[in-house]
Amino acid sequence: MTTLDEKFRALEADNAPGQEVRQEIGDLDAIMRGNKFDGIPVDFSHGDVDAFPPTPGSSSAFESGFEIGGRQAYTEYRGAARIREDLAERLGTFTGRPVSAENELIITPGTQGALFLALGATVTNGTRVAVVEPDYFANRRLVSFFGGEIVPIPLDYGESKTVHGLDLNRIENAFNNDTRVFVFSTPNNPTGLVASTDTITEISRLAASYDVAVIVDQLYSRMLYRGETFTHLRSCDNQPENLITIMGPSKTESLSGFRLGTAFGTPGIIDRMERLQAIVSLRAAGYNQAVLDTWFREPEGWMENRIREHEAIRDELLPIFRDAGFPTATPQAGSYLFPQLPRLDIDPAAFVRLLRHQAGVTVTPGTEFAPGSNDSIRLNFSQDHAAAVAAAKRIVEMVEIYQK
Amino acid sequence: MTTLDEKFRALEADNAPGQEVRQEIGDLDAIMRGNKFDGIPVDFSHGDVDAFPPTPGSSSAFESGFEIGGRQAYTEYRGAARIREDLAERLGTFTGRPVSAENELIITPGTQGALFLALGATVTNGTRVAVVEPDYFANRRLVSFFGGEIVPIPLDYGESKTVHGLDLNRIENAFNNDTRVFVFSTPNNPTGLVASTDTITEISRLAASYDVAVIVDQLYSRMLYRGETFTHLRSCDNQPENLITIMGPSKTESLSGFRLGTAFGTPGIIDRMERLQAIVSLRAAGYNQAVLDTWFREPEGWMENRIREHEAIRDELLPIFRDAGFPTATPQAGSYLFPQLPRLDIDPAAFVRLLRHQAGVTVTPGTEFAPGSNDSIRLNFSQDHAAAVAAAKRIVEMVEIYQK
Repeated sequence: MTTLDEKFRALEADNAPGQEVRQEIGDLDAIMRGNKFDGIPVDFSHGDVDAFPPTPGSSSAFESGFEIGGRQAYTEYRGAARIREDLAERLGTFTGRPVSAENELIITPGTQGALFLALGATVTNGTRVAVVEPDYFANRRLVSFFGGEIVPIPLDYGESKTVHGLDLNRIENAFNNDTRVFVFSTPNNPTGLVASTDTITEISRLAASYDVAVIVDQLYSRMLYRGETFTHLRSCDNQPENLITIMGPSKTESLSGFRLGTAFGTPGIIDRMERLQAIVSLRAAGYNQAVLDTWFREPEGWMENRIREHEAIRDELLPIFRDAGFPTATPQAGSYLFPQLPRLDIDPAAFVRLLRHQAGVTVTPGTEFAPGSNDSIRLNFSQDHAAAVAAAKRIVEMVEIYQK
Repeated sequence: MTTLDEKFRALEADNAPGQEVRQEIGDLDAIMRGNKFDGIPVDFSHGDVDAFPPTPGSSSAFESGFEIGGRQAYTEYRGAARIREDLAERLGTFTGRPVSAENELIITPGTQGALFLALGATVTNGTRVAVVEPDYFANRRLVSFFGGEIVPIPLDYGESKTVHGLDLNRIENAFNNDTRVFVFSTPNNPTGLVASTDTITEISRLAASYDVAVIVDQLYSRMLYRGETFTHLRSCDNQPENLITIMGPSKTESLSGFRLGTAFGTPGIIDRMERLQAIVSLRAAGYNQAVLDTWFREPEGWMENRIREHEAIRDELLPIFRDAGFPTATPQAGSYLFPQLPRLDIDPAAFVRLLRHQAGVTVTPGTEFAPGSNDSIRLNFSQDHAAAVAAAKRIVEMVEIYQK
């Protein structure tokens, strides 16, 4: 049996996005070559909500929630009925299948909260869970925390679009070998790859046929770049009995500071998620829930503009890394880049810390996303455009200094 | 091994405070005797933040947090350093022992969040946990969820002050029989009893001696009535190695709609709690954390007045129940009353639902707090004074109608 010590060693979070401030500098000065760089520090570990501010009206929506008073402070654990009713309609329209506000939707403390509840509702000691590599860092940790067993599904994220994607044979093989749950993100975090219509349709069919519960994290599905197509698993004809879709306004809409997320799908799982929420944190902060009224109701042109601005940053960063010889997949959606670094003559983990210490650039090490990705780094490029470009160039210079 | 079905059956939350709106009316009309009552509906399942509004300045403190922007949206998982530094000092002063902002304090999504993290950090499959009966409904559920084994510790909460309290022999016996964790609330929820100085000192000594981790929930310790003394376990000389104190501004200060709590104590447990927070919900909502700046800094006289107003309600409710022959302990702190009902000739659970349906009075059934307390009901009397008194009288009338 796993001891608490082992359980929490697996949850080690010193390199998790945002936690870098807790790291000791240690002996970095001893291994640093040359001097510190000039330039505006950029924290690519998460989006910069000062560069891309929250949806207009979000602060006053909060204020309206506060003014409502007690009714808004103490909502049902799954969230205020009135807000769920409005939201269910918009989520149903967006994802191509109606959502029942009464039975199929829960408002959570961020999409992290939704993931935690969804995995807590489906995974227990010994449950085999298919997890994509690379994928959002918490997926693997959550499965371990609940006592599940990880069945890795590799994602091919090479530069050429024709070869990339999830290996459907590996997925079917996992499903055929007692896997009970499949969790994955599309757009994929950290690569920005969007699962194709064929892939999604086939995953849905396989999950239905092998009775596997599917948890699909679509956090970035609204920030879709020109020429790309997004397919919602919940719009497929042949669906698994247990399917939860996770979305939230934290990213594209820069509403992370409010900690809001949603999960929608199979009523039985939503019920369990609510029961779990009751002992985890009761509910998403009551007043904050009112901010969901702004979601999918942004001012005309606002979202299009936001997507265009991110696409412009993507299009300038990609050649910087590729010209330097770092293989980097083209993100089809979202604001993550996952460049693969050349071989360095220092430990990649030390390089990531030096990047921060010497060059003022914070990135997330690839090992957070897959055990074997220690030569890659993740950047959230939702940043000031010019500062992000300058920081990307500093990364390339740093690699030159520490290259083998 | 516990299946997911069993695990979630144990988390059934239909009678949890605030969830009553999801109950079906069912056949209540068939068993209802007489007509519906007039009178303002009162929801005693939680405090009425319209009757006792949030701390002055809380809304503008939130606004200041929002204005800070990105830095406040993305804090460390344990909460913003600047806010922790200020707060640690005030919490240290209040509880009689310094708190290190760096290592001994975490900001959580409500005190529910703190309890979840603290038990998650100390309880795993097979851990024996001493749990008081009656006590806050989530304690037992959390222990079960994490796979622990409950060792019940009865609380004597008779009307006479001389006999009440925790049975220290039972506690020592539990500690001596492989109990690893002790979780309890003081002031006790649902009875409002405060553990005496002798009791707290002895619990501290026993926990140190048997190396038991203690999680003490002091949510209501600021709302202390005239003539009462509160002892903070963390101020004792002889302390257990592992001790976490939980407090939050949700209750007395009516800040529940912001979902803020804190836990402070042993650095090793705080570290684990932060690691767990990273996969549960990342952090308490960033902007909301700024509201903690108002905590323990209320306008002069504001807290004294709030306590006095609650004491006045308590003093008017107690005789209503006692004169009707319902044994009811005197709350020494907090805003809970836990009257014991006479024998009814309907099921107490049905009576609680009828109370809501027929008399417009929502209460929480005693079974939420201890398996054997089905003849008691819990009231949070942080309500409009006159409405609360009228509703208490309706409870007495209802009991007369349905009494054996």
